[in-house]
Amino acid sequence: MGFPGGKWPYITPGIPDGMFSRGAVPLTKEEIRVLTLAKGRLAPGQVVYDVGSGTGSLTVEAARLVNPGTLYAVEEDPVAADLTRANIQAFGLGNVVQVVGRAPEALEGLPPADRIFIGGSGGRLKDILEYCSRALKPRGIMVINAVTLETLWDSMTFGRSKGYHTSAVALNVARLEEVGGRRMFRSLNPVYIVQLADGACS
Amino acid sequence: MGFPGGKWPYITPGIPDGMFSRGAVPLTKEEIRVLTLAKGRLAPGQVVYDVGSGTGSLTVEAARLVNPGTLYAVEEDPVAADLTRANIQAFGLGNVVQVVGRAPEALEGLPPADRIFIGGSGGRLKDILEYCSRALKPRGIMVINAVTLETLWDSMTFGRSKGYHTSAVALNVARLEEVGGRRMFRSLNPVYIVQLADGACS
Amino acid sequence: MGFPGGKWPYITPGIPDGMFSRGAVPLTKEEIRVLTLAKGRLAPGQVVYDVGSGTGSLTVEAARLVNPGTLYAVEEDPVAADLTRANIQAFGLGNVVQVVGRAPEALEGLPPADRIFIGGSGGRLKDILEYCSRALKPRGIMVINAVTLETLWDSMTFGRSKGYHTSAVALNVARLEEVGGRRMFRSLNPVYIVQLADGACS
Amino acid sequence: MGFPGGKWPYITPGIPDGMFSRGAVPLTKEEIRVLTLAKGRLAPGQVVYDVGSGTGSLTVEAARLVNPGTLYAVEEDPVAADLTRANIQAFGLGNVVQVVGRAPEALEGLPPADRIFIGGSGGRLKDILEYCSRALKPRGIMVINAVTLETLWDSMTFGRSKGYHTSAVALNVARLEEVGGRRMFRSLNPVYIVQLADGACS
Repeated sequence: MGFPGGKWPYITPGIPDGMFSRGAVPLTKEEIRVLTLAKGRLAPGQVVYDVGSGTGSLTVEAARLVNPGTLYAVEEDPVAADLTRANIQAFGLGNVVQVVGRAPEALEGLPPADRIFIGGSGGRLKDILEYCSRALKPRGIMVINAVTLETLWDSMTFGRSKGYHTSAVALNVARLEEVGGRRMFRSLNPVYIVQLADGACS
Repeated sequence: MGFPGGKWPYITPGIPDGMFSRGAVPLTKEEIRVLTLAKGRLAPGQVVYDVGSGTGSLTVEAARLVNPGTLYAVEEDPVAADLTRANIQAFGLGNVVQVVGRAPEALEGLPPADRIFIGGSGGRLKDILEYCSRALKPRGIMVINAVTLETLWDSMTFGRSKGYHTSAVALNVARLEEVGGRRMFRSLNPVYIVQLADGACS
Repeated sequence: MGFPGGKWPYITPGIPDGMFSRGAVPLTKEEIRVLTLAKGRLAPGQVVYDVGSGTGSLTVEAARLVNPGTLYAVEEDPVAADLTRANIQAFGLGNVVQVVGRAPEALEGLPPADRIFIGGSGGRLKDILEYCSRALKPRGIMVINAVTLETLWDSMTFGRSKGYHTSAVALNVARLEEVGGRRMFRSLNPVYIVQLADGACS
Repeated sequence: MGFPGGKWPYITPGIPDGMFSRGAVPLTKEEIRVLTLAKGRLAPGQVVYDVGSGTGSLTVEAARLVNPGTLYAVEEDPVAADLTRANIQAFGLGNVVQVVGRAPEALEGLPPADRIFIGGSGGRLKDILEYCSRALKPRGIMVINAVTLETLWDSMTFGRSKGYHTSAVALNVARLEEVGGRRMFRSLNPVYIVQLADGACS
């Protein structure tokens, strides 16, 4: 009984935020991460890119689920890349390849992907979408996490222009946190999860 | 490559609502279902109750993930129970035991559970919580989906009174749906997911 | 004591939805209406356009507040225009001028506006924004209610391109409704309220 | 043209947060404030209590609207009371009586109220509700802002037990804020606005 993964012996994603090493780098919050992974429709053996891996929380969860597939974690910021590395090691994952560099150029030479997560774009979203669209295998899926209106709009517009099955959900999550014996509602910032699927049921 | 499950060859939950047979019975929507399962922290081999299985969408997803563990799907309404059955069969699941009857009495005689999902209570939430609390194994987790203030309050209050690690998230999900060439935001009703864990990190 | 207005003797907006005559025409819900009016920063004496008056609920509220200013209620659909008229009469308002016709053409000849609300555009949002931008007095404000991503994006983009002080809020409102002795959370669809102000503090 | 009030010459509430003097004291955010006032159904001449005035933003808005009615601003914390005072003065309001002390005792001796806003309770919500229920005039309205589950539950339960017409809305507001040329969605924490009305249409 259990699921291989050491620190997180479950098959469901949703590793608590506090189990990751963190710095000043943004972390994809547990509930957002879970839904992002779900929209990515992962399966063992897939080749996955995580573009803008940040703290590495999505990297860790996705790598566990696609094992023995390979997860390519791309991150430009060396501080964030170090955090990604630390979290990969802490969870004992052997199927992650880290790429420290700027997307989309840093993606060149990687094998075609079944799934691509885009969590950060450093202002180059359109270039990244264009590149990833070519690197995506037939029946592949791209999932973009948008925290700005620009990213939401550009992702949706790109998806439609390329004929992807394009959909999105807006998530407003609040956690009930205990404060002085009472339980206070605390919001996460809204996130829009955009799914671009090459074929409706892939 | 892939994950056993025929119609849904993915390891991540999130089967689209449209893939389930439905009647007038409420269906736990995809995004809510995904997060509910995540809060349940599933692993292969677990014994799971799904109390108030309704359409059976959560039953199907949980059964896939805990296989070869057993999923006990409890439902009082015979029409809903038939839908649950139809969906179990459509997804080819062999590890579900259906119990048609009223909880908590219908739960008597089941083996102790690692995980218990409570999606419907037919007005008997407190009795169900009391019973489930006794049927839950050490380090087990109960997850309650609350769509009313009463269920939210009673679940939280019960959890604290019994010393569970008690937490909750409020989910407001909206989908961007295409209407006449434009994309309209459509809300799902808010759902509060309550997690009662016997030990903080189980 | 009280505020002139007969059926609604209050100075605060927020007439309950059920006090308006309704048909199959969309109604701006109470909570959305209240915040839309607030973003419009109304004052007695203002000239206001309500473009796409629909049921007329915003028309009624705005007309009460700007009295003795004039509210121009523009609506293309004759069924909706009739509803607007019925609601204006029910609230005994003498300062509303109805214009039945298609915006922006139907707006020609109206006096310059202090405030412009755009609730519906019939697919001609950009033309309406262009026209309204010219019809708006210095230090005026336009408020657009967006229920689609396209309207949100186009309004924001227009506002910035014209140098307006451009801002927006996303509203997710749920009401606690009594169902069988329990109180259920029911969502309104999300609405984005966009404010384009000619000068930051007007 | 305009509305008496100097710094805010509008009849609609919604004074921007930045127009208030602030310290470390919580401020009721603009959008929440607007809807709270609307649920209070204010009219000139009313007697209003603001229990837990905090920064005084609701006090200022309510006082403007009920003028020449009187606003009693009750606050226990002397630092917050000073802020309330500073904001009352900044907006030039002459119809506010400040009471520095602990509710409900501090409310004794005040004239009966048409409207009562409860924004803070210092852990004594039930006592405050009991007292205010007696101090409320026939056809009066109480409005409670709940940021904790306890306050929401206790207010709803109290309202029903006393036969008030009891309703509530959950507000999830996000603002689109400009960050580096892009517009990011930022959440306010959820607030539940509870309305207890002595008679459904008062």
